[in-house]
Amino acid sequence: MPNNPVDTQVDSLGRCTIPSPVPYRRFVDDNDRILRDLEINKLLTQDIGSTVTFERAGPRQQLFFDPKNVKAAIVTCGGLCPGLNDVIRAITNELTYMYGVRHIKGVRFGYAGLNPNNGLPFIDLTPELVEGIHDNSGSILGSSRGPQPIDVMVDTLYREDIRILYTIGGDGTLQGATEIYEEIKKRGLNISVIGIPKTIDNDIYLVSRTFGFDTAVAKAAECLRCAHTEAKGYQNGIGIVKLMGRSSGFVTASAALAQPDANFVLIPEVPFEFDGPKGFLTALENRMKRRGHALVVVAEGAGQDLFADLGSDASGNKKFGDIGILVRDKVREHFKRISMDVSIKYIDPSYMIRSVPACPSDCVFCLYLGQHAAHAGMAGKTGMMIGSWNDEFIHIPFEAVHKKRKYVDPEGIMWTSVLETTGQPERMVND
Amino acid sequence: MPNNPVDTQVDSLGRCTIPSPVPYRRFVDDNDRILRDLEINKLLTQDIGSTVTFERAGPRQQLFFDPKNVKAAIVTCGGLCPGLNDVIRAITNELTYMYGVRHIKGVRFGYAGLNPNNGLPFIDLTPELVEGIHDNSGSILGSSRGPQPIDVMVDTLYREDIRILYTIGGDGTLQGATEIYEEIKKRGLNISVIGIPKTIDNDIYLVSRTFGFDTAVAKAAECLRCAHTEAKGYQNGIGIVKLMGRSSGFVTASAALAQPDANFVLIPEVPFEFDGPKGFLTALENRMKRRGHALVVVAEGAGQDLFADLGSDASGNKKFGDIGILVRDKVREHFKRISMDVSIKYIDPSYMIRSVPACPSDCVFCLYLGQHAAHAGMAGKTGMMIGSWNDEFIHIPFEAVHKKRKYVDPEGIMWTSVLETTGQPERMVND
Amino acid sequence: MPNNPVDTQVDSLGRCTIPSPVPYRRFVDDNDRILRDLEINKLLTQDIGSTVTFERAGPRQQLFFDPKNVKAAIVTCGGLCPGLNDVIRAITNELTYMYGVRHIKGVRFGYAGLNPNNGLPFIDLTPELVEGIHDNSGSILGSSRGPQPIDVMVDTLYREDIRILYTIGGDGTLQGATEIYEEIKKRGLNISVIGIPKTIDNDIYLVSRTFGFDTAVAKAAECLRCAHTEAKGYQNGIGIVKLMGRSSGFVTASAALAQPDANFVLIPEVPFEFDGPKGFLTALENRMKRRGHALVVVAEGAGQDLFADLGSDASGNKKFGDIGILVRDKVREHFKRISMDVSIKYIDPSYMIRSVPACPSDCVFCLYLGQHAAHAGMAGKTGMMIGSWNDEFIHIPFEAVHKKRKYVDPEGIMWTSVLETTGQPERMVND
Amino acid sequence: MPNNPVDTQVDSLGRCTIPSPVPYRRFVDDNDRILRDLEINKLLTQDIGSTVTFERAGPRQQLFFDPKNVKAAIVTCGGLCPGLNDVIRAITNELTYMYGVRHIKGVRFGYAGLNPNNGLPFIDLTPELVEGIHDNSGSILGSSRGPQPIDVMVDTLYREDIRILYTIGGDGTLQGATEIYEEIKKRGLNISVIGIPKTIDNDIYLVSRTFGFDTAVAKAAECLRCAHTEAKGYQNGIGIVKLMGRSSGFVTASAALAQPDANFVLIPEVPFEFDGPKGFLTALENRMKRRGHALVVVAEGAGQDLFADLGSDASGNKKFGDIGILVRDKVREHFKRISMDVSIKYIDPSYMIRSVPACPSDCVFCLYLGQHAAHAGMAGKTGMMIGSWNDEFIHIPFEAVHKKRKYVDPEGIMWTSVLETTGQPERMVND
Repeated sequence: MPNNPVDTQVDSLGRCTIPSPVPYRRFVDDNDRILRDLEINKLLTQDIGSTVTFERAGPRQQLFFDPKNVKAAIVTCGGLCPGLNDVIRAITNELTYMYGVRHIKGVRFGYAGLNPNNGLPFIDLTPELVEGIHDNSGSILGSSRGPQPIDVMVDTLYREDIRILYTIGGDGTLQGATEIYEEIKKRGLNISVIGIPKTIDNDIYLVSRTFGFDTAVAKAAECLRCAHTEAKGYQNGIGIVKLMGRSSGFVTASAALAQPDANFVLIPEVPFEFDGPKGFLTALENRMKRRGHALVVVAEGAGQDLFADLGSDASGNKKFGDIGILVRDKVREHFKRISMDVSIKYIDPSYMIRSVPACPSDCVFCLYLGQHAAHAGMAGKTGMMIGSWNDEFIHIPFEAVHKKRKYVDPEGIMWTSVLETTGQPERMVND
Repeated sequence: MPNNPVDTQVDSLGRCTIPSPVPYRRFVDDNDRILRDLEINKLLTQDIGSTVTFERAGPRQQLFFDPKNVKAAIVTCGGLCPGLNDVIRAITNELTYMYGVRHIKGVRFGYAGLNPNNGLPFIDLTPELVEGIHDNSGSILGSSRGPQPIDVMVDTLYREDIRILYTIGGDGTLQGATEIYEEIKKRGLNISVIGIPKTIDNDIYLVSRTFGFDTAVAKAAECLRCAHTEAKGYQNGIGIVKLMGRSSGFVTASAALAQPDANFVLIPEVPFEFDGPKGFLTALENRMKRRGHALVVVAEGAGQDLFADLGSDASGNKKFGDIGILVRDKVREHFKRISMDVSIKYIDPSYMIRSVPACPSDCVFCLYLGQHAAHAGMAGKTGMMIGSWNDEFIHIPFEAVHKKRKYVDPEGIMWTSVLETTGQPERMVND
Repeated sequence: MPNNPVDTQVDSLGRCTIPSPVPYRRFVDDNDRILRDLEINKLLTQDIGSTVTFERAGPRQQLFFDPKNVKAAIVTCGGLCPGLNDVIRAITNELTYMYGVRHIKGVRFGYAGLNPNNGLPFIDLTPELVEGIHDNSGSILGSSRGPQPIDVMVDTLYREDIRILYTIGGDGTLQGATEIYEEIKKRGLNISVIGIPKTIDNDIYLVSRTFGFDTAVAKAAECLRCAHTEAKGYQNGIGIVKLMGRSSGFVTASAALAQPDANFVLIPEVPFEFDGPKGFLTALENRMKRRGHALVVVAEGAGQDLFADLGSDASGNKKFGDIGILVRDKVREHFKRISMDVSIKYIDPSYMIRSVPACPSDCVFCLYLGQHAAHAGMAGKTGMMIGSWNDEFIHIPFEAVHKKRKYVDPEGIMWTSVLETTGQPERMVND
Repeated sequence: MPNNPVDTQVDSLGRCTIPSPVPYRRFVDDNDRILRDLEINKLLTQDIGSTVTFERAGPRQQLFFDPKNVKAAIVTCGGLCPGLNDVIRAITNELTYMYGVRHIKGVRFGYAGLNPNNGLPFIDLTPELVEGIHDNSGSILGSSRGPQPIDVMVDTLYREDIRILYTIGGDGTLQGATEIYEEIKKRGLNISVIGIPKTIDNDIYLVSRTFGFDTAVAKAAECLRCAHTEAKGYQNGIGIVKLMGRSSGFVTASAALAQPDANFVLIPEVPFEFDGPKGFLTALENRMKRRGHALVVVAEGAGQDLFADLGSDASGNKKFGDIGILVRDKVREHFKRISMDVSIKYIDPSYMIRSVPACPSDCVFCLYLGQHAAHAGMAGKTGMMIGSWNDEFIHIPFEAVHKKRKYVDPEGIMWTSVLETTGQPERMVND
């Protein structure tokens, strides 16, 4: 892109040569890499040179983009998540105050805002505009689901002279970001694409923590407390709570640990059956006879094998059965069948666990994410996202997480802790 | 009841003669009565002697029951409500510390605990047991719905030598309390029945405020904020929230005033139609075209005339259609019909607005209620409940509220304020 | 003011003749008056025609100011209070949407913003600007303490053509508003002055409730809970909390009722002594020996007679001694003297109970206040404030509350309830 | 200890041979060790065999103590901390339900409860007793500061036949635990001492996170928000908040990141001066002239070099000057000197950030800590504490942390982020 106005200065070895204006001398070197695995035994059995490591995030001494001229854009996609505004604010303030960037655009309503057919002009992101937005839930930019034509979006970036695109989103968003990144590469454009992973389900591969998760767990724990109150408030009371988590049960399991009154936790990673001597209903019946009340928490993606195939939606995603309602109905039928009067209270908090302002620990986390994203973008990093691993912030290439997902390990500490805390049977399947 | 061990001392004029041990000399006289109506114009047009007044609540100088011997019992019935434990604690502490009562029993699981067939022994309520319970949601006694045989319950009271029964509950509970009171009268027993009105819906006649209402509105307002966040977070976002309120819309209207982002409030007292030029869907469509997002709040009892007759449940109560789901589906169909892409987010917080600890203003209110209930019981009042009217605590005879209900006045200040705050059409019916 | 552009239309009888554009037909008549006293016995002993009544607040059918031309201004003065933004938002929206007023000015930093010497231009208050401000604490207008020259402020109002001035503030503010109102009268100007009473202390005469009070009590109750936790967490633990309340103890007493763990409540209205057999320290010592922990709550204005005269500040207000610190030190000395090891934890939350967003019940209350203030202003009312009395909103002339104050009645229900709840001695003075 | 009733079974190689009753087969081996350092470059430059590693926490397949007979005790020492009850509950439930331990004792009021002179009998910790305690702040066991004679405490353990002592506490507590452990070793007793590190300041060496920290930061962030509201609410408003942190500024720095409105953060690790061209007061003055308001947050241990030597307290700890008050007074004097009217609001939340229930993320963390402590104790581990490092739970020998402390690294990511967020000068010292 020799005729691009913000062309970077790269020396003959391909190294960036614009000195960073960041006033602190705590620059991170690209060779500063972090181990993926911490077990010494694993390390001892392999060639240490070939062990998997990640690039450490942080400010670089040399920039790729000239802060005086570069134009950045931020887009938020997919479901709302606590902390979106915190991340937007952190990127905006960091680029403005630390680097002196003067042009930061906000893309309206997700990728839709990169498609001119939707008539959604950018908004100017300034410290004044983002002041105080961290106290509010949602995203000041708005969001949307679903893809837009990749070439149209890249056309927009080129036409608007955007040099750094920050995409805040989950699975689908990272998929889109990957495709945008590849199209940019194909066209030979100097545009960085930096992802900030976002998912209330906390199921992004190689990312130990996603922002908004602490907040969601906190709200989910409140629901559990309500359901527990209802269950204990009546003879043979049964509280049933359905929580978010299509593929993984992190929110559900964590909420059950945070408010350890749950007696049964059902997640996608651990199959269960309703009937039979080892099935869930028998286990619940035993608990009820022993204690007179119970609290059941179920992730929306749990037990999907118990539904007939429901087909796929327009985007090709498998349609989900409503496992919360199914659990409620199965429980009702079971106790009717055995003529035991029970008082069932069903709670589905749905959006109430995600449409809230970030809790303070998430606020701090979002601030770090945004600041690191700003650094990565200015350093010319691209095709990568900011991750959190072993308490460090790292750069993860898009391809490393592509089509992968993080799951609750049924043999791991979290699920073991859930089993210990709930006292539920380890396996609720017959055979 | 001359052969009753705690026989009261009544003089020849039927006045109680046991002096109160309450150390403060702030006794209230039975003749101290409070006006129901405050408008001077109403008063001027009537014989002031015949105007409606209420007995003021408070400690009496002479007691009917001897604190040394009297045994009291507390029962909580119906749906859980923030503040139940606060009231239990207040009655227990007041009877114990102020009057020196030594026998206070907690009835388990509502009226069921007064029926020996259910095998639910009383528990002893002491200051030690109730310490700290005000920080917890629910009722330490448990609750239940539905009636028990009146004569069986009165038998229990007599056998257990209960002299003051405190019933904390709503409609059905007061109905039961009334029948217990009448059976007691018929049998000529010296047992007082004191009601403390409880309803999350705040719809008890002649009672301007019920405990738990502030808390429920606070939680409901949180839901509205979430739904508003979701609605604004997407192009053409529509948030729909269903709230409690079978016969009256106080929670719904108040929540809409507390979080004044609602654009449509649907309550039982104000009929509406979905279709037609003046119907709700047209009004919503206009709003969406003008502003791009909307928040709809609907009380569970709203629009029940829009359902076919669903019959009655076992207790003879009319079955309700799920108006929240109906609104959601009608909205979805409507915008599909007019080919406008909308993003609908539906929230039904259900028990989450009632299974929470009381907020501080409710705590104070519960404390007053419990203390006044203790006073009323010791003074030998019976067949009445503690009410709150014009910022005063009063005694209301059961018969004054029997089969009556309080409604949101469509011509009154609250609904007018809702109309002004939402900007919704005053009438959404065609004709 | 015949040459004023927005001159009202008044008929020969002095009645306003501009019809209200408010679309609801629920107008309130000036003759609709509310009784001050509710006791039937008081009424029976007096001439009912001469009993004290208040004008009921609400929309009037005829306006004094023409909405098309009138210009209004809002000023917030004195200490911050939860709900200021709610009131600002409610007045702005009501004037705009219901009346069609197009010019609403926000005065910056209290009365200082009405003095051009301070160089603080007005800001334009529009529905867009006030959207969402109710979620934030503080005042978007800012505030200040202390007076400004009355004639200068009236000059400003006249020059800026302000016809309705809304003053939101407490004692000093109402004093200022009264003087502004009188200067306006003297000059024969058509400018309305409407007060909205604001005080975290809830001590305004004839006003049963002020906005922000519920919120402040809620935060204060949190402090009490912390101090109680600390007191119980150590052997012979003593928690001491100082709360706001210079002249009256409403916040302190209410917080003690909301979190009924307090054992001693000290307020300005009830004198106490430290020493002597009946003094506070002896009572505390007895409690400590009996129970091993104690919680003491003290209003900042309590026990001021125990300090030497500290003189007055610049504004002529009596300087206050720090009673919280004095209590802490006296307690420390006392137990040192009697060689009892105690663990004292002192908490002074100061601004933390007022610099928070309004709780939902306060939000609703603020909305009503703002809407009624808007109605009063448009109807040409002046020299009055919006009050709340016996659950009704009323108009109270400035002169009725001038130099008066509301106190906790040591013989009334609130203080009696505090005595019952704490178990503290009724009088902690020797004599 | 051959004559001890719960003698462990150890084979000829010294290995425990009681099989664990824990029903899950996810046992951790003692050889499973975790790297301390994650940087690949560090590893490459050293002999991998000699790199620092930690033993991983978790259930062991072979137990040292026989669950049927073993008696455990839990003691909580030092300042209260959110999550104490969660840890007590987790240990109690894990030992009871997973291992079948039947004797768990609660030591009252810290180490004082191990000294019979204090007359504080143990209490029995059972699942029934600890049910629901996680919803409450403080410690159900109570706490105390200061040491007790080591030999007396070990005598008590021996006499009461305690085999596992869980000490939950900070610096001083771990010091005491170390001495108890050494005395036990000297006497050749089979008593395990397991520490669970507790410090609101989060300053324990080799422990990346301590429980209660997230909660404390959340409450501290609330204070900052209040102070920011006050600062912005007045012309030239300055909010000053003093937070906990005697030796390290983690709470203060994290709160400033969570509520990023702070403009100056003062912590013990970063020296500053008040006066001079580069001093804090000049920097504050510049900010005030530029923006008209400021928020200053100061850790209690900051700037202690600015006080004259205040001597030491009874325990030999250096006495601290009140830096919050000093900052407030210096600021007041400075602006008086330059004749700039400022409005200073000082907030010292003191115990309010620690005497609260744990937030959900801390609840989960406490649960893990307690469960791992239970495992470590049953496996016969001793002289060690449960740590959290790089997102893993590990065993840390007492000697590894002895007399060490964790500090905010002025060159690290947290402080850099604070500098970027606040915009404060990197060094506020002259020369």
